Formats: sequence, structure tokens, C-alpha cells
Amino acid sequence: MTLVVQKYGGTSVGTLERIHRVAEKIEKAHRDGNRIVVVLSAMSGETDRLLRLAHEITANPDERELDVLLSSGERVTIALLAMALRNLGVSARSFTGRQVGIVTNSTHTKARIAKVMTDSLQRALAEGVVPIVAGFQGINERSDVTTLGRGGSDLTAVALAAGLKAERCVIFTDVDGIYTADPNIVPSARKIKKLSYEEMLELASLGTKVLQARSVEFAAKYGVPIEVKSSFREGEGTLVTHEDADMERAVVSGVAGDRNQAKITVVGVPDRPGIAASLFSAVAGADILVDMIIQNVGYGDDLADISFTVPRSDLPRAMGLVQQIAEEIKARTVEVKEQIAKVSLVGVGMRSHSGVASRMFQVLFREGINIMMISTSEIKISCVLEEKDLDRAIKALHKEFDLEENAS
Amino acid sequence: MTLVVQKYGGTSVGTLERIHRVAEKIEKAHRDGNRIVVVLSAMSGETDRLLRLAHEITANPDERELDVLLSSGERVTIALLAMALRNLGVSARSFTGRQVGIVTNSTHTKARIAKVMTDSLQRALAEGVVPIVAGFQGINERSDVTTLGRGGSDLTAVALAAGLKAERCVIFTDVDGIYTADPNIVPSARKIKKLSYEEMLELASLGTKVLQARSVEFAAKYGVPIEVKSSFREGEGTLVTHEDADMERAVVSGVAGDRNQAKITVVGVPDRPGIAASLFSAVAGADILVDMIIQNVGYGDDLADISFTVPRSDLPRAMGLVQQIAEEIKARTVEVKEQIAKVSLVGVGMRSHSGVASRMFQVLFREGINIMMISTSEIKISCVLEEKDLDRAIKALHKEFDLEENAS
Repeated sequence: MTLVVQKYGGTSVGTLERIHRVAEKIEKAHRDGNRIVVVLSAMSGETDRLLRLAHEITANPDERELDVLLSSGERVTIALLAMALRNLGVSARSFTGRQVGIVTNSTHTKARIAKVMTDSLQRALAEGVVPIVAGFQGINERSDVTTLGRGGSDLTAVALAAGLKAERCVIFTDVDGIYTADPNIVPSARKIKKLSYEEMLELASLGTKVLQARSVEFAAKYGVPIEVKSSFREGEGTLVTHEDADMERAVVSGVAGDRNQAKITVVGVPDRPGIAASLFSAVAGADILVDMIIQNVGYGDDLADISFTVPRSDLPRAMGLVQQIAEEIKARTVEVKEQIAKVSLVGVGMRSHSGVASRMFQVLFREGINIMMISTSEIKISCVLEEKDLDRAIKALHKEFDLEENAS
Repeated sequence: MTLVVQKYGGTSVGTLERIHRVAEKIEKAHRDGNRIVVVLSAMSGETDRLLRLAHEITANPDERELDVLLSSGERVTIALLAMALRNLGVSARSFTGRQVGIVTNSTHTKARIAKVMTDSLQRALAEGVVPIVAGFQGINERSDVTTLGRGGSDLTAVALAAGLKAERCVIFTDVDGIYTADPNIVPSARKIKKLSYEEMLELASLGTKVLQARSVEFAAKYGVPIEVKSSFREGEGTLVTHEDADMERAVVSGVAGDRNQAKITVVGVPDRPGIAASLFSAVAGADILVDMIIQNVGYGDDLADISFTVPRSDLPRAMGLVQQIAEEIKARTVEVKEQIAKVSLVGVGMRSHSGVASRMFQVLFREGINIMMISTSEIKISCVLEEKDLDRAIKALHKEFDLEENAS
């Protein structure tokens, strides 16, 4: 009998009517003889509502208490779905993170999973019970509730699938798979049938918000196949798995755009060893992810300009730090540019095909789009450009690399 | 250093602004050198909202899952209050029912407390921490969440006060004490300074919704003094404690009215042994509380009429059962009267004063009020009458027994 972990996101359980629909889906799969473990998020909007309450109470809510607060959202959905399933004659039972035994470290609000016990779930499955597990939460060694950070329910699902050696982890969400580009921007974008973990990781980190990056890493580590599909429509989704011979052999698998970008330039930095280090270690210390870095050595003087990108949402915090350090190191000034974006090509095929980068630059040049920064990895090329040029860049690249529907 | 358990009800933590006010109150008491354990309800309306969700999902929600759902409300308030207190510099920490160690039986949605561990709270108190405890919830022996039924947070507070041997359990609520009558009906009603557990129990069971009856029983058993006071205004409340010489020596302590009453009459019941038993055991089996019972033996035939009162809110359920049994025992018909109410006099002074009942009947007679049923205990006399007469009865009795403010 196959064992599958199914995860339903916030929009999939956002209303009572949708919870009923999820219950019917599960009832059918159960009736068909599958063993199923279900992982749920809170109703869409609930986690944000709770966060808002916390931030209205105090500007800096205690993180242990934040986790007590935030973990209440999933209790509501697991209880309601279990009720709905029992009503359909399925012997379902809700499990909190503690009841499953998802043990994490004590980094509240973004805890890392240390251990996943599966005894209680195994026992329930052996009794024919369908366990309904609260995603996003665990307990630390002191038995305090912890949460796993944004998108943490994906991680719960993958971790349970790994622990239970499930055949597959199915992530039900509001899109029906991973596309070659955002269909809102490129109407001819095609659903990708199969994708490697590495490609998915690059796409996840590039702003394709379908799967949480940490859950993809976890799945890759333990070899859990992830299927992304729609909870609203029938049909196949996208399978994320190990790279294999069978994998589509396109050079480029997809084009991703990311608007959550801002560029900071520290102008006139004395060109001495250790200066850049002090700057970036301060920013990293504040848990702000610096993505691309360029240093232009000045001509004639000993001053350099250092430019780097950070998530636009972290810009205010980053600027506070950077301004302070710029003063300390006696830099001339600090400039900010917010209206930038990043376009990226991703594909395992790049490993064996050279010339992808130059084709990319030519396309952008042809479109009259200025490239501000470039970064590459084995299976990815990213360019930073003006935000206003992003959609045009995505469309042109999607066409250039033959990603359209019905393309040969 | 005195130890006090403070309990705040749903209206006291119903908004963020009120949570802030509660935090300030606690901060002040803490600064004054008191050791405090705080017990909270969910925000007012939250438990009803969750119940509504459950009943929209299914007509008969599973009770284990109902408890998972309902227990989420208190997690929100304990986390928010702990955050607010930490913001004021008080080292507060939230505790769920499980983290405290409130162990109950497995009667979900109305579990009974079996054991209260106090180690974790004792340790926290020794560290100078103010524990903020989720009321209304516990865990059973399988470590599943249970809830204690309506008003269960009062019970949590009293049970913790007993377990910790606290000096006092203060119930902060939206009224500032127990009155000689409902001030909305009798404007001259007086706040009672001190009341015995027995009197409070009679008042609690009579529809004075200030304290949950089970929590008063628990307090009486373990000798925990309860103080009822307003969370919005300063000033003394009402102390509920063991009867003592110091207790106010009024014959009657208060007049209570209860509109949640309905009368069922089974007409033409064959007058045979066991008939009444079968009727009432069925009703009791459905957990419906029968209050007063009258049986009128008919004249000439062997048929009797049996009348009894039930809470009006349970009437539909009760009628379903009674109709069925009436058919089985071949009773003539079943009649219902909903517009009835109960007025009661309560006072430990009745033990030593005779003639209270006859004075009560005379007052009602003088007012032209018809008495339908009567019941008495050592410290209480209750009469069932037409609902339309209730307010007039309360006013007249309040006056007759000298309960007015500034009465000698």
C-alpha cells in the first residue's frame, strides 16, 4: 500500500467550503486504498492577522511568545478538517507538532528541525487512521512550541515524508505546477513536468514562491520526490526529483523574475583590506541576505565604490547599518536604488551547453535593456536590470530559449 | 511574600487596549512585591466564533477535535499578554494547560480536573517569572488536549490557587462584585462584601453568571478564598469564603432571578411505580438538568400529571426525549410552558431564622403574583412564576428583606 504525504496550503483551507473539498479529496484517496498523512497550514491570512496583533501589542514581540501565538492558527485547520473527515466516515485524527514529535532547535520563529519522530504516526496509520498534522510547528527540547518560518508547512510535509519513507510528498497549492515563466507575464508559458531539486532550489530562491527553499533542500537530501499540484483542479502537476536521464533535456528550464530587490552603493570607500569585510559581516549579522556584489575600483584615487543587492523588504534595516558603517569607514556617501529587478535563467542543461550567458546578454541588448549586475552559478544566470524592463526581458528570454507551449 | 492567582475573563482581554491595561495592573502588583500567577480566558467572542466554525463544518463535531479547536483561543491571549508584560520589563512567560500540567479525565469539552502539577509554576515563580496560564484547558493521560466546559477558566484559576496554596484567587470580570440583586432590575441593590461558598454556589446555580459553579465547589473543598472584582474599576469586590462569625448576619443575602427556565408537563400518566423513574433517567442520561418536580395525582382515575422544569436552552432536546417516553408509557399528552422564571432568596441566615418562606409567599401574594412551583434548601427558597412577574417579584423581595443600599 502506498504512503503519500499531502500538504494543503493556506488558500486550500481558507474557507469552510474549501476544507470540505479537501476532505472529499482525502476521503476518495483513502477509499482508493492509499495510506495518507495530511499536513495543513493555517487559513490564509490567519498567520498575518496574528502577527499584526503581536506587533500592535509591542514593537518587538518576544519570539517564544510569538511562536505560542502563531502556532494557534494550524490548530484550527487540523481540528476542522479532522471533523469534516470523520463526518465522511474517515477515521481522521489531528496531531499538533508536539504530538507528532517534530523536535527543533530553539531558534524561535525560524527553528530548524532536529529530529522527526514517526512512532505516533506509524501507530495511527497501522490503525487505519488518517493523521492530520499541524504544519509549521514543532517543539524544542524544553517542550516549548517553535515555528519553522514562512512556508514552514512545506518543510513539515517533506520532513514527515522523509521520516515515514513515503513514496511521495504532494504539495497542494493554488497553482497547478511550476511554469517556464510566470503565466501572468508570459501567457504562452508551459507547465514543467519534471524538474531537478537543484533547478527548483534556484527557482525557489529566485522568487517563485511555490515551494519553500529549505523544504526543497531537505527533499534533495533525503531523496523525497515532491509533486506540486493544484488543490482546485484535477490533473498532473510538476514533479521535483533527482536529475535523471529521463529529465527533459532543455538547456533552460525556466525564466524567473524577482522584484524584491534593491541596490545599495557605498560611494568612495577607502580601498583598504578588511573594509568590505566589515561592511558585509555587519549586514549578514542582521540576517539580511546580500545577493550580488560589485566593486569598482576608482581611477586615480584610492577610493572604490561597492554596490550590492538586498531584498527590498530588508532595505530600511540594511540602510540603518550601512549608513553607520559608511561613517565609520569614512566613505563619501551611500546611494540607494529601489526600482530594480532580477531576471534569471535556470536549467541543468547549462552544465553541458556553453553560450547560454552570451545568448542571454544579446537578447537583452537587442531589447535595449541595460544590465546592471550579473551573477552565475552552474545552472543559473541572473541579471539585475531596471524594474520597468523586467516583463519585457522575461518575455524575450522565454521566446529565445524555446520555452513556449507546443515549442518543439 | 504573598502569592495570588489572578484570573481575567474574556471581556477583560477582549481588545489589545484592554490587554495593555491588564498588563499594567499586573506590572504594578508585581512591582509591589507580590508573586502572581495569571490565568486567562480567550478574547470575548472567540470561543463562540470557533464553535460556530465547528458546527458549520458538521452538525456533530468530534469532541476530541473540538477541544483542539477551542483550546487555540487561550493561546492567543496568553502569548499577547506575556509580550505586553515583557515590554513593560516584567519577566512573564506563557504556559499552556499541558505546560502547567493540568491533567484531566477524557470527557472532552467538559473534562474534570484529576491532578494539578505545580512544579513548573513553582520553578518559574522562584525565578521571579510571572506565569501567564491558559485557562479552560488541560490534557488527558494520552496527552490529548481537553477543555473544562463553559467558565472553565475560573476552575483553572481556583485549582491552581489550591495547588499552589495561594493566599487568594482573584477573579477579575466585567462586574465589580456580587450584588444583593441584579442592579439592572433593582437600582438600590448593594454589593455584598463577604459571602459563604454555599451562598455563592446557590447564586451561581441560580443564574448569577459571575462565577462558574464547579469552581466554587472546588474552592470550598480546598478552602481557597475567591475575590470577585472589576477589571475596569478600582475598589474592593466580593470575597467568597468559609462561613465565619464575621459574616454579615442578614437573614437573606441576595435575591436571584433566572429566566433560563421552561416547564414540561406530562399529562395523564398512569400512576404506576417506575414510570417517573424511566422519564427522569432518560432526561438525566441526556445530561439535562431537571430542577423542580411536581406530581399531581388525579382525582377519580389512576392518572397523574408530572410537571418539571429544565433549562430553556435544553428544551428542544428534552422535548424530543419526553415525547418519546410519553408515547411509550401511554401518557395522554405533553404540555410546555416557556414563559416562566425562577426567583430565589439565598442566605446562610435562613438556617437560624424561620418564617422566611412564609414572608416570601406573603410578599408575592400581596403583589398578585401566582406561584407555580416551590423548592427549598437549607439556605435557599425558590419559586417558579410567570416570566412577566419576575422583575416585580425581585424588587418586592429585595425591599421586604431590607437589602437596599444604606439599609440598617
